[in-house]
Amino acid sequence: MYVQGYAAHTPTDPLAPFAFQRRTPRPDDVVIDILYCGVCHTDLHFARNHGGVTAYPVVPGHEIVGRVSHVGAQVTRFKAGDIVGVGCMVDSCGHCPACTLGLEQACHEGATFTYGFLDRRDGMRNYGGYSERIVAPDRFVLHVPDGLDPAAAAPLLCAGITTWSPLRQWKVGPGSKVGVVGLGGLGHMAIKLAKALGAEVTLFTRSADKAADARALGADHVVLSGHADQLAAVGGKFDVIIDTVPYVHDVNPFMATLGFEGVLVLVGYFGPLEPPVTAGPLLHGRRVLTGSFIGGIHETQQMLDFCGQHGIVSDIEMMAIQDINAAYDRMLKSDVKYRFVIDMASLGRPGAGHG
Amino acid sequence: MYVQGYAAHTPTDPLAPFAFQRRTPRPDDVVIDILYCGVCHTDLHFARNHGGVTAYPVVPGHEIVGRVSHVGAQVTRFKAGDIVGVGCMVDSCGHCPACTLGLEQACHEGATFTYGFLDRRDGMRNYGGYSERIVAPDRFVLHVPDGLDPAAAAPLLCAGITTWSPLRQWKVGPGSKVGVVGLGGLGHMAIKLAKALGAEVTLFTRSADKAADARALGADHVVLSGHADQLAAVGGKFDVIIDTVPYVHDVNPFMATLGFEGVLVLVGYFGPLEPPVTAGPLLHGRRVLTGSFIGGIHETQQMLDFCGQHGIVSDIEMMAIQDINAAYDRMLKSDVKYRFVIDMASLGRPGAGHG
Repeated sequence: MYVQGYAAHTPTDPLAPFAFQRRTPRPDDVVIDILYCGVCHTDLHFARNHGGVTAYPVVPGHEIVGRVSHVGAQVTRFKAGDIVGVGCMVDSCGHCPACTLGLEQACHEGATFTYGFLDRRDGMRNYGGYSERIVAPDRFVLHVPDGLDPAAAAPLLCAGITTWSPLRQWKVGPGSKVGVVGLGGLGHMAIKLAKALGAEVTLFTRSADKAADARALGADHVVLSGHADQLAAVGGKFDVIIDTVPYVHDVNPFMATLGFEGVLVLVGYFGPLEPPVTAGPLLHGRRVLTGSFIGGIHETQQMLDFCGQHGIVSDIEMMAIQDINAAYDRMLKSDVKYRFVIDMASLGRPGAGHG
Repeated sequence: MYVQGYAAHTPTDPLAPFAFQRRTPRPDDVVIDILYCGVCHTDLHFARNHGGVTAYPVVPGHEIVGRVSHVGAQVTRFKAGDIVGVGCMVDSCGHCPACTLGLEQACHEGATFTYGFLDRRDGMRNYGGYSERIVAPDRFVLHVPDGLDPAAAAPLLCAGITTWSPLRQWKVGPGSKVGVVGLGGLGHMAIKLAKALGAEVTLFTRSADKAADARALGADHVVLSGHADQLAAVGGKFDVIIDTVPYVHDVNPFMATLGFEGVLVLVGYFGPLEPPVTAGPLLHGRRVLTGSFIGGIHETQQMLDFCGQHGIVSDIEMMAIQDINAAYDRMLKSDVKYRFVIDMASLGRPGAGHG
């Protein structure tokens, strides 16, 4: 089937309308009319080929919420009309040790991510959520709980699971002392989720003007990470720190705020850690430096269900698909609270834009 | 009581005979005639003031095995004649959360280490095991199992517990795949202990000529860490790596050999990690970079008991106290298999030396 979407055709040209073909649904496929798609920094990185691996044209988008329009003959968990989500992955081998444990993101054969990857069955390149419709295997489709605003739920499919997974892995619960570094799309979800899990939550930020917002999102405390005295006052305090900063930064000041066996989890930055990490605080105090990357599908459903029970969604700024290039420019300036979500109805209104 | 020992008086002069006073035993004290004392790199660092914190004169030595000669009135766990050990610590507050958990090395008030520290009750500076006698609170005295050579057991008090503690913390057991980086005092104990715990053990070394020795110590495999093809062949393999290298080195090649949620534990190096650690492998694979520093007292007794059951001791080179300066020079060249141990009987033979 042909569908309309928006694609980047080069690293520098603006994203533009693009019609392309989705596969004919297979027996285990779910066909979804996309209602909303969140805009993740990864989309921008892929569109502009920051990683050097982009195959053009690329249709970004992996925070997808929509309505099921058709299910294949083998699909029993979904039916037409269901509000569902698709996140960062659309397939994996399904039988390796990682997949068997529900860690599809670590599939030994490599997971099939939602856009820019080759379908592992038909070999065709896949396209993401900046489009009117997607076809995905039922194993990678999530139920979006009733009662959650489907637009504001879209970012849960990436920003939500990315912060939820390490919070659960490191057993954050009532009484845990959690730090969150950075207040963007990931950081604001980390605050909401950690708070709902019962933790005492502290935001580390370089911007004093984010303090009020952080408290409104649920943070109990705000530490200005440029102030040595404020950092010293929380020395040895934290059980878990979720570090969402997406660019190179010094992790040493945050390591010093971890208690014995405290854990700092990087979720936003993949490059070299500079200035260098000092080993001493790792030995003294058995502090842990680790990372986490999205999460498994079963875990994603657990996160969505938890959000349904606690009424948690992302704070979003709704936008028309025609404004995607301006949105990318604003994201580069961190000028969004806290996630752009594309209203896919705008696709049918060429030239239309919100605001 | 006055005792004879060997002390460094400046960072550059050779260690030399030194007579000093030990306290009159308190009701909870154990008086120990020192039979053997292992020589740890830390001793050399303190003697030469590499850390900039040494108060002279310093009598090093924290791998102490001796025979109890007297116990205070409150002491019930030891009696005269017992073969006992004293390791890196001789006191701690005893009531903080860390002490309560048996993690005296992380005492919130600061543990009292065995030499160069101030006694927390009388405020006097303490002296270590390069001496004929030591007085220590019973809570910090260990039983050395019958059947272990007391000289070869001495290094268990530091090199043994330093490698045992992270192996246990990270649940190494039958079937675990364990890597050990570096074959010195710590590395050779890590191989022996991991093997006895049931693990499949691989030594990483830069020296091809250490392969046979590593296998003799129990290693199943040897990987030459300067060979990219050998490192690639063990990519994603290990559950736990104990990195014993005591100087700055690149940990990235070893991180890549960890499997999902694999853990690299630094036990020998406290400085900045250069070249910089790359975050990507921490996120992808949830790999853990951490460290560990000695271990608690109860855990040290468990380690000694385990060694007693499995007949594990250090490989040692026995020496006379008069040879300590030459021993330091050889340690700096890694010219020891794998631990020097001072035969304290040599103290009574001025000028005497082994070999």
